[in-house]
Amino acid sequence: MTKTTAIYLDNAATTALDDRVLEAMLPFLKNQFGNPSSVHKQGREARVAIEKARKMVAGLLNASPGEIVFTSGGTEADNTAILGAITSLNLTQVISSPLEHHAVLHAAAVYAERLQIPFTLLEVDQQGNLDLNQLARLLEKHPKSLVTLMEGNNEIGNLNDLHAIGNLCKESGAFFHSDTVQTVGHYPHNLKSIPVDAISASAHKFHGPKGVGFLYIKKDRKISPFLHGGSQERNMRGGTENVAGIIGLAKALEISYQEMDSHAAHIKQLKSHFIRQLQQQIPGIGFNGRSSDLNQSLYTVLNVSFPPSESNQGMLLFNLDLQGISASGGSACSSGATLGSHVLQALRCTAERESVRFSFSRFNSVEEVDYTVAALKSLYS
Amino acid sequence: MTKTTAIYLDNAATTALDDRVLEAMLPFLKNQFGNPSSVHKQGREARVAIEKARKMVAGLLNASPGEIVFTSGGTEADNTAILGAITSLNLTQVISSPLEHHAVLHAAAVYAERLQIPFTLLEVDQQGNLDLNQLARLLEKHPKSLVTLMEGNNEIGNLNDLHAIGNLCKESGAFFHSDTVQTVGHYPHNLKSIPVDAISASAHKFHGPKGVGFLYIKKDRKISPFLHGGSQERNMRGGTENVAGIIGLAKALEISYQEMDSHAAHIKQLKSHFIRQLQQQIPGIGFNGRSSDLNQSLYTVLNVSFPPSESNQGMLLFNLDLQGISASGGSACSSGATLGSHVLQALRCTAERESVRFSFSRFNSVEEVDYTVAALKSLYS
Repeated sequence: MTKTTAIYLDNAATTALDDRVLEAMLPFLKNQFGNPSSVHKQGREARVAIEKARKMVAGLLNASPGEIVFTSGGTEADNTAILGAITSLNLTQVISSPLEHHAVLHAAAVYAERLQIPFTLLEVDQQGNLDLNQLARLLEKHPKSLVTLMEGNNEIGNLNDLHAIGNLCKESGAFFHSDTVQTVGHYPHNLKSIPVDAISASAHKFHGPKGVGFLYIKKDRKISPFLHGGSQERNMRGGTENVAGIIGLAKALEISYQEMDSHAAHIKQLKSHFIRQLQQQIPGIGFNGRSSDLNQSLYTVLNVSFPPSESNQGMLLFNLDLQGISASGGSACSSGATLGSHVLQALRCTAERESVRFSFSRFNSVEEVDYTVAALKSLYS
Repeated sequence: MTKTTAIYLDNAATTALDDRVLEAMLPFLKNQFGNPSSVHKQGREARVAIEKARKMVAGLLNASPGEIVFTSGGTEADNTAILGAITSLNLTQVISSPLEHHAVLHAAAVYAERLQIPFTLLEVDQQGNLDLNQLARLLEKHPKSLVTLMEGNNEIGNLNDLHAIGNLCKESGAFFHSDTVQTVGHYPHNLKSIPVDAISASAHKFHGPKGVGFLYIKKDRKISPFLHGGSQERNMRGGTENVAGIIGLAKALEISYQEMDSHAAHIKQLKSHFIRQLQQQIPGIGFNGRSSDLNQSLYTVLNVSFPPSESNQGMLLFNLDLQGISASGGSACSSGATLGSHVLQALRCTAERESVRFSFSRFNSVEEVDYTVAALKSLYS
């Protein structure tokens, strides 16, 4: 069984740039190279382009342009929201969960320690459900809290209910930030109706370029900048804007919204087909978190728990890679991913079972899923 | 006098991307889209590419690959160095100058205040010369200092002697960071011989892409990361790497080094021709800082002080722009540039004289300079 064409099932780590996005970026990598802070013709052209991009992003999310800050990616957006909220609003507690991305967990831990305020992780059960009663109790004791809980988990796909969490925060006056890196561009967001103060997004998770993202921050929640320097981004972020990247982000988000329904339907179909085939072909298969529940998990992510197998123990990703199938063990967003996943640990997954995250995009096909199932079947026979 | 072709003389704000740089980036904006943290084929390809880029950058600067941290640009590199050095090395004073870029001045002011340590600006004379005797005295009193002084000033072009400053720092054990955003790619840097602990650079200042830069940090000076998240950049910076940007940065620096002598000679010739022509054609012309001294200033920057003129007062950049000439009033790196330059203020420049920064690149020609001088002559006749 050999195949030269790669089957890319690691779209939660990064997605391929859409050709139309690259096309939109190219003028800004060629003749339209001005610095948006320059007042002359080339500068004004660049300025107009990024403000148009900001308006596009804000419009799609039902936010105001002044609420969108372009960043170098999701990690910077998370760091900006977390440090900015704690310091600018004098918050006295940080509440998160053990299932968050390291960009949230590490940033929150560092800033809470630096500012000497408690950092509390909510309890989670073996399916990765958060204890919202605990959240309510914590907020009652400490209303001036920062709550940072993601919308869609990058490893197991679990979807959290931003309305339920946000309403608890709203009642107590807590600041609610959500890392929505896995959901922006894949699910619609109406930020006038979701009770959230800040969300983070990253363009390369929705077929945009790497190195650019954005932070949405509600206009009545003024926080200080994270990157200190020039007065770019309405004094919210120093540094010459990544113009081509910003144009690419806006174009990618525009396409995502235009084609969201058909892409979601296509990918959901792939995911349910994959689940059915795995259940039929591989005895003892399981799924981590709620990832096999199509209504309660990202349609782009399936985290599969394989039965114990000597020949695949510690080697499954490698064996798949040899057959041209790219997937990930837990999150591939950090180099230490091969060291084991803090998310699967929090779910008390046993080490004898190999876990693989398969994550899909609109560029995947049923044939690719079938090929992958056949490869897995041969590895587990 | 009309001209449709724009004459771009704002290269200290940003430079045009070199076609060869874009060509090197394109594969990473197309098929080679993997996340460098993924362990499969596409991930490894991206990882190999950025490590090759790191090796290239380190090699050109005579540094080790482990000393190069890719960032989202010069501002992030400055923030990382300044905050990281103060906190990780328990420094008790920050010393800088009023002529620094806002990325240094604002970052240093914020972090010094946050950590409640003194922040001292060196005295400068009307040519922008730093008082190094004052620096020596300050370091004697407070050896555990962070000294952050730029190599080449972005507005007036003044070059500081990194060896002289660095030796003072070395004697006292101070940490020396230099914002070398205007010099990297334009002057050679041998980091084994320059006594500096950290330097910052930005790709778009040397015909690379916007949104990417690097921090060099000497290997025996361990500082903590600025962006907390994944374990990218050997745990020095969380966040998925801007792969195409990093490849572009390395390619741009490679070209800069290969062609440095001929580009420097060409641009120096443009600058001296411009100085001579202005002196001959416009009575009362002057130059700010040391920018007319070719040996003591950036060959890319000329800051011109124009005689008082009612018709040009507050309108000179606009008048030039109308004639297709793009230049800048002071630094164009921040949106507030039109509010007036803190650098020219520190030199006690009078407000009646309009100051314009003309900054050159290898893409400029003698004809463009002559056209600009003719336009200025007509505005001042």
